[in-house]
Amino acid sequence: MHLNDDERIDYIIENELRVIQSPTVFSFSLDAILLAHFAWVPIKRGKIIDLCTGNGIIPLLFSRQSQVPIEGVEIQERLFQMGTRSVDLNNLNDQITLHHEDIRHLPTNLKRESYDAVSCNPPYFKSERRDQRNLNEHLTIARHEVMCTLEDVIRSCSSLVKQGGKVSLVHRPERLLDIMVLMRKYRIEPKRMQLVYPKRGKEANTLLIEGIKDGKPDLKVLPPFVVYQDDSTYTSEMRAVYDQL
Amino acid sequence: MHLNDDERIDYIIENELRVIQSPTVFSFSLDAILLAHFAWVPIKRGKIIDLCTGNGIIPLLFSRQSQVPIEGVEIQERLFQMGTRSVDLNNLNDQITLHHEDIRHLPTNLKRESYDAVSCNPPYFKSERRDQRNLNEHLTIARHEVMCTLEDVIRSCSSLVKQGGKVSLVHRPERLLDIMVLMRKYRIEPKRMQLVYPKRGKEANTLLIEGIKDGKPDLKVLPPFVVYQDDSTYTSEMRAVYDQL
Repeated sequence: MHLNDDERIDYIIENELRVIQSPTVFSFSLDAILLAHFAWVPIKRGKIIDLCTGNGIIPLLFSRQSQVPIEGVEIQERLFQMGTRSVDLNNLNDQITLHHEDIRHLPTNLKRESYDAVSCNPPYFKSERRDQRNLNEHLTIARHEVMCTLEDVIRSCSSLVKQGGKVSLVHRPERLLDIMVLMRKYRIEPKRMQLVYPKRGKEANTLLIEGIKDGKPDLKVLPPFVVYQDDSTYTSEMRAVYDQL
Repeated sequence: MHLNDDERIDYIIENELRVIQSPTVFSFSLDAILLAHFAWVPIKRGKIIDLCTGNGIIPLLFSRQSQVPIEGVEIQERLFQMGTRSVDLNNLNDQITLHHEDIRHLPTNLKRESYDAVSCNPPYFKSERRDQRNLNEHLTIARHEVMCTLEDVIRSCSSLVKQGGKVSLVHRPERLLDIMVLMRKYRIEPKRMQLVYPKRGKEANTLLIEGIKDGKPDLKVLPPFVVYQDDSTYTSEMRAVYDQL
């Protein structure tokens, strides 16, 4: 396996699942783990696609839960290459296919309204102000809405998911209203939401949300998810997420 | 103090605040307590109004926190009468004024865009199906969207609150998306939200939300609020709410 200078292989799961990362280009975050845990995925039949997949962390994690074909789409060549090598490294070429594409112009080989589950951990930050962007281009694209806006993301999710299929996203709670309004605009009715709090007594800093294409309105708010205990070690629910990966 | 047959005087706060209630007409709920605790109110300057005020429970509770004039609006004659007698009973006529009005047709004595804080604990249930409504007319009007819809409520809140003033609501989490969309439609930008869970590990059953008229988008999600411990006694945070009344 070829590794570039700044890359390293990290174990996501000890002795089982490995992913190529690079601190200067892209490392997966806790948010990807939380989304992979939160999202509904079909187990035996159907297919899954993950947009803005980065180094393929979410497809890799989904492969632990599901036997169906899993695809991923990433716009950045460098990250796409890291992802394909990670798929290789884990001998998951039969199950996972990554595409180097722009989700704003979905290629015809991604069939419209055909996926049972679509997930996305999109860039979080609006990119109006150049000076607030990350100076590293790769990180900027991964974190800021440079290459695609939230509306691009949700429109693409909606065009890929089939009727009755599920779309799951992780984002910042500040964008909750925008997300819900856009979901409804693109016929993804919000059905399940969970707020993630860094510690007990703190404001939520992460939002997990799932909708159903053409579902009927009926939003459930799951119990709050707290990541760290007061002593900054993981809570038992966070440890349970890792144990279930 | 005259009491009708089915009415009783309950202490909200031992030896301090009393409210006239009737199990067959209207009794205040935990939601009113939670809203009165959650809502921002001006302390020394400005004015407050509570819509769908029922027996005046929220104005009565606000009078504990604030010295400014407080108004309430109730459409049901019977509840309005109970409310005015409760205001009398607590010698709060100088501070609290209740109006027997329909919030859909706000009278001219309620000045538009003049209130610093507007609160409302509106009817929760859509009223499409007659057979699901409460058979008791008073309870039906208090609980179902018979006399006013969610949109009526939010439009009225917006027409009364001044620019930069705050509108706070308590409702069901299932309506979160409708509430946020309507708030934005009527220029109340959601700024602060708290989800209330009956017990740890259960889904949220109550939503507290506050917006600012013409505020800029920036929603904060406060720490989750849990009402009962596993043994069905109040949590320390719920006891603290009562202690602070």
